Amino acid sequence: MATLVLLRHGESVWNAENLFTGWVDVDLSAKGESEAAVAGELLLDADVTPDVLHTSLLKRAIRTANIALDTADLLWLPVKRSWRLNERHYGALQGKNKAQTLEEFGEEQFQVWRRSYDTPPPPIADKDPLSQVGDLRYNTLPSELVPRTECLADVVDRLLPYWYDEIVPDLAAGKTVLVVAHGNSLRALVKHLDDISDDEIAGLNIPTGIPLKYELDADYVPRKRGGEYLDPAAAKAAIEAVKNQGKK
Amino acid sequence: MATLVLLRHGESVWNAENLFTGWVDVDLSAKGESEAAVAGELLLDADVTPDVLHTSLLKRAIRTANIALDTADLLWLPVKRSWRLNERHYGALQGKNKAQTLEEFGEEQFQVWRRSYDTPPPPIADKDPLSQVGDLRYNTLPSELVPRTECLADVVDRLLPYWYDEIVPDLAAGKTVLVVAHGNSLRALVKHLDDISDDEIAGLNIPTGIPLKYELDADYVPRKRGGEYLDPAAAKAAIEAVKNQGKK
Repeated sequence: MATLVLLRHGESVWNAENLFTGWVDVDLSAKGESEAAVAGELLLDADVTPDVLHTSLLKRAIRTANIALDTADLLWLPVKRSWRLNERHYGALQGKNKAQTLEEFGEEQFQVWRRSYDTPPPPIADKDPLSQVGDLRYNTLPSELVPRTECLADVVDRLLPYWYDEIVPDLAAGKTVLVVAHGNSLRALVKHLDDISDDEIAGLNIPTGIPLKYELDADYVPRKRGGEYLDPAAAKAAIEAVKNQGKK
Repeated sequence: MATLVLLRHGESVWNAENLFTGWVDVDLSAKGESEAAVAGELLLDADVTPDVLHTSLLKRAIRTANIALDTADLLWLPVKRSWRLNERHYGALQGKNKAQTLEEFGEEQFQVWRRSYDTPPPPIADKDPLSQVGDLRYNTLPSELVPRTECLADVVDRLLPYWYDEIVPDLAAGKTVLVVAHGNSLRALVKHLDDISDDEIAGLNIPTGIPLKYELDADYVPRKRGGEYLDPAAAKAAIEAVKNQGKK
């Protein structure tokens, strides 16, 4: 039996300002830092001790991991990072206010961009200051691999190679694996793990800062569908709050 | 030509209290955190952009790296950690006050323990609360590999496999390599790089928080012996201060 722990980064400055973030490298807010410390305490309280950490290349995930692991006295864990764990690229919406976007384009279009499985937002221009083309951290990727926009289906496609090639081997070696990533990269992973349909995934939200533990069988299928949040009551309340995002 | 940057962690709480630390996992002091941020600024100012980070398994080095890289907007760097970069194990001296030890055992014995190349301090007992035998982070090491005490020659012996197997391949791949480690693990590495004799190494001190840059030739020999501190004036002042350690 293998143990996988998923953790969505704490609130970022742009989460707090209700902006689409995507691949823009926005830092944690003070609240996000506190959430990260609480996540570390939840790991300690539940006696869940990861053996290895996987993060995206975005600082809100990396700092969440660093703060949580510092709290749990596990800063020394081996770590691997990959762009494949990054948040969904929000295309031309990056940096836009969610409430203004809702107002400008209407509820239907807004929800398509936000939750449609296979319709991406309009692409961002390469010369846009919020484009990631030319960003130092992606300079080992051929340009065609750097997203200009993504739908969730795109995230599943670019995430799964990392799941199979990097995370599963750690699980196979008997390690407890901690993945600190983003709302949509974790939704993509959970869709795969729990075999959630393209339609149903729209309704699934993952709260920030609450470790989600999966026990997996020999085929890396969850023993309990949906896993187990280490603070179930807080997770339930937070999931409701995420559902109301953009409705400010 | 390959670039190697060495960084000794900022002041720890026990540095500030003048205690022998070794493998005890003591955190940075507030001053140490500031030093780490300054190290990040020095990297930025000198336009030195590491491609990969290597750290020890001790939090004072890991947190120094995290703070410096956050300052330099490089938190996303790939990272490898190893016990082979840890500080020298100070044996039974771990946790002891340097000034008291000097007073109790006299100047000669004190300097032998502190600076002799091949005489280690007395070993720490496995049941001592400051022993690292049984520490979770070393549980992939056979017990005989966990030091009970070390002299600098021991550090050289356990460091060099990591230099050859993990750091040199990164340099060979054309990467600028940042190593964030400790006073004595970096002295051991510098001894090797600059081909310093067993006697001469006693007089070499590496200051905290100031990146030391080496340009290496095709044989990984420094083009300039001793490298170049990114803040030479601060390094010179700090080296003098280290020489007077223990004389409080």
